[in-house]
Amino acid sequence: MSLDLGVDAVQLTEDLVNIESVSGNEQEIADAVEAALCELDHLEVQRFGHTIVARTQHGHAERVVIAGHIDTVPLNANLPARRDEQALHGLGTCDMKGGVAIALRLAATLPVTNRDVTYLFYECEEVEAERNGLQLLSQSHPDLLQADFAILMEPSDGIVEAGCQGTLRVDVRVKGVRAHSARSWTGVNAIHGAADVLARLNAYEPRRPVIDGLEYHEGLNAVFISGGVAGNVLPDECVVSVNYRFAPDRSVDEAYAHMREVFDGFDIELSDSAPAAMPGLSVPAAAAFVEAVGGRANPKFGWTDVARFSGLGIPAVNFGPGDPHLAHKQDEFVPLDQITTVERQLRSWLGGDA
Amino acid sequence: MSLDLGVDAVQLTEDLVNIESVSGNEQEIADAVEAALCELDHLEVQRFGHTIVARTQHGHAERVVIAGHIDTVPLNANLPARRDEQALHGLGTCDMKGGVAIALRLAATLPVTNRDVTYLFYECEEVEAERNGLQLLSQSHPDLLQADFAILMEPSDGIVEAGCQGTLRVDVRVKGVRAHSARSWTGVNAIHGAADVLARLNAYEPRRPVIDGLEYHEGLNAVFISGGVAGNVLPDECVVSVNYRFAPDRSVDEAYAHMREVFDGFDIELSDSAPAAMPGLSVPAAAAFVEAVGGRANPKFGWTDVARFSGLGIPAVNFGPGDPHLAHKQDEFVPLDQITTVERQLRSWLGGDA
Repeated sequence: MSLDLGVDAVQLTEDLVNIESVSGNEQEIADAVEAALCELDHLEVQRFGHTIVARTQHGHAERVVIAGHIDTVPLNANLPARRDEQALHGLGTCDMKGGVAIALRLAATLPVTNRDVTYLFYECEEVEAERNGLQLLSQSHPDLLQADFAILMEPSDGIVEAGCQGTLRVDVRVKGVRAHSARSWTGVNAIHGAADVLARLNAYEPRRPVIDGLEYHEGLNAVFISGGVAGNVLPDECVVSVNYRFAPDRSVDEAYAHMREVFDGFDIELSDSAPAAMPGLSVPAAAAFVEAVGGRANPKFGWTDVARFSGLGIPAVNFGPGDPHLAHKQDEFVPLDQITTVERQLRSWLGGDA
Repeated sequence: MSLDLGVDAVQLTEDLVNIESVSGNEQEIADAVEAALCELDHLEVQRFGHTIVARTQHGHAERVVIAGHIDTVPLNANLPARRDEQALHGLGTCDMKGGVAIALRLAATLPVTNRDVTYLFYECEEVEAERNGLQLLSQSHPDLLQADFAILMEPSDGIVEAGCQGTLRVDVRVKGVRAHSARSWTGVNAIHGAADVLARLNAYEPRRPVIDGLEYHEGLNAVFISGGVAGNVLPDECVVSVNYRFAPDRSVDEAYAHMREVFDGFDIELSDSAPAAMPGLSVPAAAAFVEAVGGRANPKFGWTDVARFSGLGIPAVNFGPGDPHLAHKQDEFVPLDQITTVERQLRSWLGGDA
């Protein structure tokens, strides 16, 4: 399958969607993207696994990364793509082949830009971090990611989403003493002891700090609970797994320290964490970008790969077509006018004809 | 392997323990019991699967069942039997080959008794009810179980335990609305909702009714809890499995109605139940038996097969050597003097020489 970058971005989105590329199965789409980009003289193209980097080398003082992942979540009877008057429907339309199509169109049609651009198309964003193409590249070739600013074309309804909240998970462990349930007064029921953990969660008031003008919204939620030995035994252990989503003014360490306060008196253990990313809208390149694409920015509540750029010291935002709430849903779609608008805004910002 | 019923009850207990008979593997012990009983002219012996019934037919007005299960819980590196000065140690010593040995000794050495006796040795007491030899016999040959009174030789520390508490399990289901944990305010967390269920359990005051002079002690306990969809999702369901142990003055229906009151407002479902058994100590045969073996009786908190006799309209008690709290423990044992005392008491009650 070959890709024609001469078609419009809506058609190109449809063409990309119709190349199935569930995580781990990106060979075909990566081959097509690589082949199409290699035909463009103004780009230096490199490939690592199924991750492709294409860079302009105009010698500008400023460089921007425009990035998108080429994989999707698993098939759910939602291919091939289906287009109606308003939208394109199907797996990956929203998350995020609309954004990938725009980036490819910009790469193909802007031989001259007002800042250097590093286009990045990467694999395995929808699966574990160790397979994530952006993560792998940041470890093996961090130089290729160097830039003043990064735009991750994740669905954001065509409005800049800045920063992202961090996330961690702790296991809160409640202990008891086993006993036969026919003589329950001889034991201590660990599930009953978890009432205090749940009461603290119910009483918790999440913070809503304002950072760089954006109001974040934290959350503290039990995501798993388990306990039990047998139908006639008082259990001696109950584990509540709690997910804390924290605003970018807290580090993982600070967030974990907060968990120790909240669950003071219980045995807690950190099972998973990912740092937040500051919105970085005070950085000139970022502020100028927001100004250029409409002047509005929203906080990003979910965690995205912008945090990886943030970890490399590169301010980054999410900006792409599609409603982020539709990501991973069977009936995901992308509005056609958002594809067109986002492409026009980026084209203009890069110095092309609007 | 053959059994010599001429040895004393302690030695016979040891011999029975050394025939491994984990539930489902009772062939060998049942063969030995059947062969030994068939040599006794005063008994009418029948076998059903690995359950053996041996009856005297003296024509007395009164008949008593003396019953014991011949299976054990699984091996736990606790065979063969080991004897010291005070006790016999090993799998099945307490639960309940001491009681089985006494019953076999009575069967072998009392050709004449003052009431007719139905000796019952049955399989699969330690596993699901559908395999229980007593349950199967009560369905296929209820006439063979007809009696005025039944003694189940389960370990009771040599003191009569009368009646037994009933048990039921309900699943209390708490509903919520899924949401991504990064935007938790858009959902309803079902695990957090379970706080109310646990609070009701913690606030619950179990009844301690006195029935036939015995004080029972109810209990209401969560035995399982589960909920959770993924590490980043607010769960839409949390299920708390609650075990209610209820005194013999309540039927299963009454106990379930009580659960509906306690968990009013929640969706509950009955998953399991077994009725209680009234102590029945006001029945003359039972009262006379208690008088004959020391005049003391305790309430039985756990559920045992006495409830099956109760269901057939036959008053029944637990009475056997061994501490009931040691049943199913790796280090179970039976005190030698309890074997001797219980045998002597039963022998005397049946009209033999004390």
